[in-house]
Amino acid sequence: MTKLNLIVEPGKHEIRMTREFNAPRELVFKAMTDPTLVPRWWGQDATPLTVEQMDVRKGGIWRYIQHDSDGTEWIFNGVYHEITAPERLVYTFEFEGMPGHVLLETVTLEEHNGKTLVIDSSVFQSVEDRDGMLQAGMEAGATESWDRLDTLLADMQQIA
Amino acid sequence: MTKLNLIVEPGKHEIRMTREFNAPRELVFKAMTDPTLVPRWWGQDATPLTVEQMDVRKGGIWRYIQHDSDGTEWIFNGVYHEITAPERLVYTFEFEGMPGHVLLETVTLEEHNGKTLVIDSSVFQSVEDRDGMLQAGMEAGATESWDRLDTLLADMQQIA
Repeated sequence: MTKLNLIVEPGKHEIRMTREFNAPRELVFKAMTDPTLVPRWWGQDATPLTVEQMDVRKGGIWRYIQHDSDGTEWIFNGVYHEITAPERLVYTFEFEGMPGHVLLETVTLEEHNGKTLVIDSSVFQSVEDRDGMLQAGMEAGATESWDRLDTLLADMQQIA
Repeated sequence: MTKLNLIVEPGKHEIRMTREFNAPRELVFKAMTDPTLVPRWWGQDATPLTVEQMDVRKGGIWRYIQHDSDGTEWIFNGVYHEITAPERLVYTFEFEGMPGHVLLETVTLEEHNGKTLVIDSSVFQSVEDRDGMLQAGMEAGATESWDRLDTLLADMQQIA
């Protein structure tokens, strides 16, 4: 299995993550934009996800709810700025537990020999916001999430 | 007249501009969110502005067209992530002449003794994008735009 590559330069507003997936990018794009597939990879096994809203078009709103085993809800939302199938998504991202802290996320899919390199760049409103996201355990969360995506993509290719 | 204060740190993703306006923030917020008022200040005297679309709500799209005297159009668009009257706007921003380069802009209005401090922070997808915007003459453009806003706010207070 390939690994998540996290790029964090000190004092910058950006977090950049890359990982190669063993699937064509049409499939990766589908896993990222289909509301029935997102709960199968976004987040963690321990916190089942409800896609409350996911209107995949410019100006469309997305809102995801993670359900902790003790009943706590972790809610995230944003709006789509760009959807260019199957190569690029640009959208805002906000954790409702910290309202008013918004980031801009750009996901780029590059296909090479049937595999897809995902480049996920987030720019935060401040370096402090970015560092807070890292301290909150973003790398572990993203690693599990992308491991789940890897599994989902394998399942989708067995079915196809 | 107060001056624009531009904060640009080398190697960062952000441009931060601040300026104090001699008007309460309700008025400044109105000038920024009313489609009939935006053409009176946004941009330059030499390039009349058409607000083609301006749906001031979360997920709403805005699209402005500047008309150059030689017939050239300069088009800008984005989506609103947050509208909190009269204190905060968060939206994406893209110049259609350079498609795919998106920034996240946060405008905060702070009122002190009847005057309003506008804090305008833009974070770009890359440091290169930010530096390109500066080289394209952003400071001169913003200075003229905010001078026009200053004049508009004075007019609005004479009428009120």
